[in-house]
Amino acid sequence: MCRWVAYRGRRRFLEDLITSPAHSLIDQSQCATEAKTATNGDGFGIAWYGERDEPGHYRDILPAWSDDNLRSLARQIGSGLFLAHVRASTAGRTTRDNCHPFVHGRWSFMHNGQLGDFERLERRLEARLDDALYGERKGSTDSELLFLLALEFGLEKNPKLALEAALGFVLREAIALGIRPLIRFTAALSDGRALYCVRYATDRHAPTLYSGAMCPLTGDGHCLVSEPFDEDAGRWSEIPSGSFVTVSDRGVAVEPFDPSGAVQAIAV
Amino acid sequence: MCRWVAYRGRRRFLEDLITSPAHSLIDQSQCATEAKTATNGDGFGIAWYGERDEPGHYRDILPAWSDDNLRSLARQIGSGLFLAHVRASTAGRTTRDNCHPFVHGRWSFMHNGQLGDFERLERRLEARLDDALYGERKGSTDSELLFLLALEFGLEKNPKLALEAALGFVLREAIALGIRPLIRFTAALSDGRALYCVRYATDRHAPTLYSGAMCPLTGDGHCLVSEPFDEDAGRWSEIPSGSFVTVSDRGVAVEPFDPSGAVQAIAV
Amino acid sequence: MCRWVAYRGRRRFLEDLITSPAHSLIDQSQCATEAKTATNGDGFGIAWYGERDEPGHYRDILPAWSDDNLRSLARQIGSGLFLAHVRASTAGRTTRDNCHPFVHGRWSFMHNGQLGDFERLERRLEARLDDALYGERKGSTDSELLFLLALEFGLEKNPKLALEAALGFVLREAIALGIRPLIRFTAALSDGRALYCVRYATDRHAPTLYSGAMCPLTGDGHCLVSEPFDEDAGRWSEIPSGSFVTVSDRGVAVEPFDPSGAVQAIAV
Amino acid sequence: MCRWVAYRGRRRFLEDLITSPAHSLIDQSQCATEAKTATNGDGFGIAWYGERDEPGHYRDILPAWSDDNLRSLARQIGSGLFLAHVRASTAGRTTRDNCHPFVHGRWSFMHNGQLGDFERLERRLEARLDDALYGERKGSTDSELLFLLALEFGLEKNPKLALEAALGFVLREAIALGIRPLIRFTAALSDGRALYCVRYATDRHAPTLYSGAMCPLTGDGHCLVSEPFDEDAGRWSEIPSGSFVTVSDRGVAVEPFDPSGAVQAIAV
Repeated sequence: MCRWVAYRGRRRFLEDLITSPAHSLIDQSQCATEAKTATNGDGFGIAWYGERDEPGHYRDILPAWSDDNLRSLARQIGSGLFLAHVRASTAGRTTRDNCHPFVHGRWSFMHNGQLGDFERLERRLEARLDDALYGERKGSTDSELLFLLALEFGLEKNPKLALEAALGFVLREAIALGIRPLIRFTAALSDGRALYCVRYATDRHAPTLYSGAMCPLTGDGHCLVSEPFDEDAGRWSEIPSGSFVTVSDRGVAVEPFDPSGAVQAIAV
Repeated sequence: MCRWVAYRGRRRFLEDLITSPAHSLIDQSQCATEAKTATNGDGFGIAWYGERDEPGHYRDILPAWSDDNLRSLARQIGSGLFLAHVRASTAGRTTRDNCHPFVHGRWSFMHNGQLGDFERLERRLEARLDDALYGERKGSTDSELLFLLALEFGLEKNPKLALEAALGFVLREAIALGIRPLIRFTAALSDGRALYCVRYATDRHAPTLYSGAMCPLTGDGHCLVSEPFDEDAGRWSEIPSGSFVTVSDRGVAVEPFDPSGAVQAIAV
Repeated sequence: MCRWVAYRGRRRFLEDLITSPAHSLIDQSQCATEAKTATNGDGFGIAWYGERDEPGHYRDILPAWSDDNLRSLARQIGSGLFLAHVRASTAGRTTRDNCHPFVHGRWSFMHNGQLGDFERLERRLEARLDDALYGERKGSTDSELLFLLALEFGLEKNPKLALEAALGFVLREAIALGIRPLIRFTAALSDGRALYCVRYATDRHAPTLYSGAMCPLTGDGHCLVSEPFDEDAGRWSEIPSGSFVTVSDRGVAVEPFDPSGAVQAIAV
Repeated sequence: MCRWVAYRGRRRFLEDLITSPAHSLIDQSQCATEAKTATNGDGFGIAWYGERDEPGHYRDILPAWSDDNLRSLARQIGSGLFLAHVRASTAGRTTRDNCHPFVHGRWSFMHNGQLGDFERLERRLEARLDDALYGERKGSTDSELLFLLALEFGLEKNPKLALEAALGFVLREAIALGIRPLIRFTAALSDGRALYCVRYATDRHAPTLYSGAMCPLTGDGHCLVSEPFDEDAGRWSEIPSGSFVTVSDRGVAVEPFDPSGAVQAIAV
């Protein structure tokens, strides 16, 4: 189980969410309180939107808490839209290419969760990618492959439908292989304009997802996090499983998220 | 273009070939004299046979010349059969999983060369692997994929035929895609008993391969190297392109190596 | 707080103590049950005695649990005397040069504990080293400096007296600077023949140290560990604070360890 | 011998000097044409001034040419004043703490050159630092120690005098030890406002230093480089040995640089 933070709002330094709060992402990397795995020492990454079309991208395999580069970058880099992740590996080895976020053109993606029986599913899932997306796969994680599948299913046009279709495809392939489907999927992604998040699972154990204003008084920024920063219960609201969240200039919208329709649609 | 050394003979410390000679592998990593690329700073690796069935395996992404661990291991570890490699990347990024040698069960494999248009061929080549070998692929190099193809084509039963069949398959797939085939392939591999080497190319530029006794006087060990250690021209003999070399208890045998027959055989 | 294992006895593969037991060192690196810090993800190292005078030495800054090299080395390397360590940093940054064990000639040394106000003491302690030992310091830890001080005070002639003198010197310097001395020191060291361990602290919080036979039935090897491998309470005996343990061909001997006499002796 | 680039002028993306030109710093890291060592694969670093008082700081031990993080950061980060360095080690091991630039508060520093007999001089030089600067030393290079000595001798008040005094102190200490002094020192440093460079040696082999406008036509930025980017001979002027260069809002000023006066001044 990994931990992550996503932010959209007024431009601020990354350190405000990565290193400064009482229960910041770096602090969480050493002592997560809600996660299944107490330590997230298998690498980390950030993706942030600045002056370029594509996001900046920094990943390393050291534990986040011991990386001076990360500390300096988080102090220097300001952004109005960024993703940050610390990793505890479930599938895929400790290499930079397996660290979240993953980036494709303007898009960034990070994930907490797992696909059951991924080693049996991987080949069939990968076969669904077109040649260009197949060629982009650099690591060996289920997460990167899910991101590429979402791109295959039209992420750049309609993120919600594409993610439903991608997970629906996974469900269908699992069934076709006689595997009882298990997906736990709490993810954040962005195209540099809006921030999108999903919380979903095929069982009752969808990894947690919380939403909260960066500064409750001024309301000048919004966070989606896998685990709250602080004990301020009034600040954070839990997003229920089966939700798709959009944070844009029009505020925060929550819609139902259900890949099963996509399964039928694809199956037809 | 990478550089490598393979040894079979009386047990000796790895440092005898990796760090001690005037023109050792580590020296070569900073200043190769026959290779296309002057610097081999994209990682290194060793595989050696000792008391276990499977070889020991050590790889890292640092330049070989700056790795204290390698220096200590080469001083401590003795073996009668080992492979050592320094890498200059042509395909595949600088990660441990892309460093040679690659290991599968008892087998180890390392390679110097390239496949033309690998990014177009990769998917079709990978599709030829059975599920178990597909699941073993950890990196993104053409070299690891060629090793897995050789396993698919029966490496464990007949190394020469399997390598001919694997390269023949590559040639056929290239032709099928309308690609003019380009293979340059100088490789060493072992099952812990014999040492096998290949020098082959579809053009006139097969990467070099030399054979020589470790100690010309005592004859108690044999080396196959991508580039000679020393200026002692009498010690080294160049292996011609289109050769398959076997070093075993019965000495050194050189046979012709020709994947084109395999192409026809497969094509039938 | 770090975790470590030291072994002396019949030659065995390092994996028997590093990766195989139910509560092995690698398992401990993710979830120490008696240590102050739950995670030991700031690097690891091994030193083992084989065919050379000096020990083999392998250290890296990855978390031990994600290092394939360590896993392979531990399976291949057999030794009758070795030290292994996983690190959670208290002083000194995450670099290979700060990972234990430290090696000097035939000697190896590893440590769990701390020196209070080390940043104030460091310069005065370093000044006590002769030029050659000063030139050997590669990292910035209190542990490496304590090892060099012990060498300065005659480790190679009399390990117990040298360690008492080194710690006594630290106490005296702290007092001279008006610092209330705080030393917590549980260490293992070897010259390739005997294995020596110390448990000592100036307060009641000496890091734990346990002694036990590798195989209680056959008695063919002895372990000293910072934390037991298993729940077999009958196997492990806790070494009290203020002890110096020698494991040699004559068995296991425990003597009182008290640097305060050395303080007076030096002070005279 | 290392290679570096320093820039002051209109804000621009770091990639303009680090990755884009025909003969950029990354290109130089694989194939330096004027340096003694052909390969600069022992790490790299950047320091840039942005919205904070202190510079941003990113260093890693990989060869610069294989670091995706560096490529992304150089595309994202814009600055009007920055230093970038690729390292080929002469003294000091390959660790992040030994990579240039070094940073102290607002100041950054990078260096190409060497101190003769550094291992004999190191201790006496280090002894000259006050406790705070002594405590700041993290690595083992002569370069970092020279930077700390310059701080000790008043870098923050008068960079030229402080550097002359620091090198003068080195000369005096070498003479006191009976060592024939050898200093080769081509360095760049900044406080975030001006850019300062030095070219100096005690013999005829001061590492090269060139000065040139970023865009000769618009004149909106100035570079100081250890080796020119391109073949445009009209663009670059070589700075003679024994020079101190200041690039500020008032343009480029070159003054004589001579530590020998400082030797006498100190010696009095």
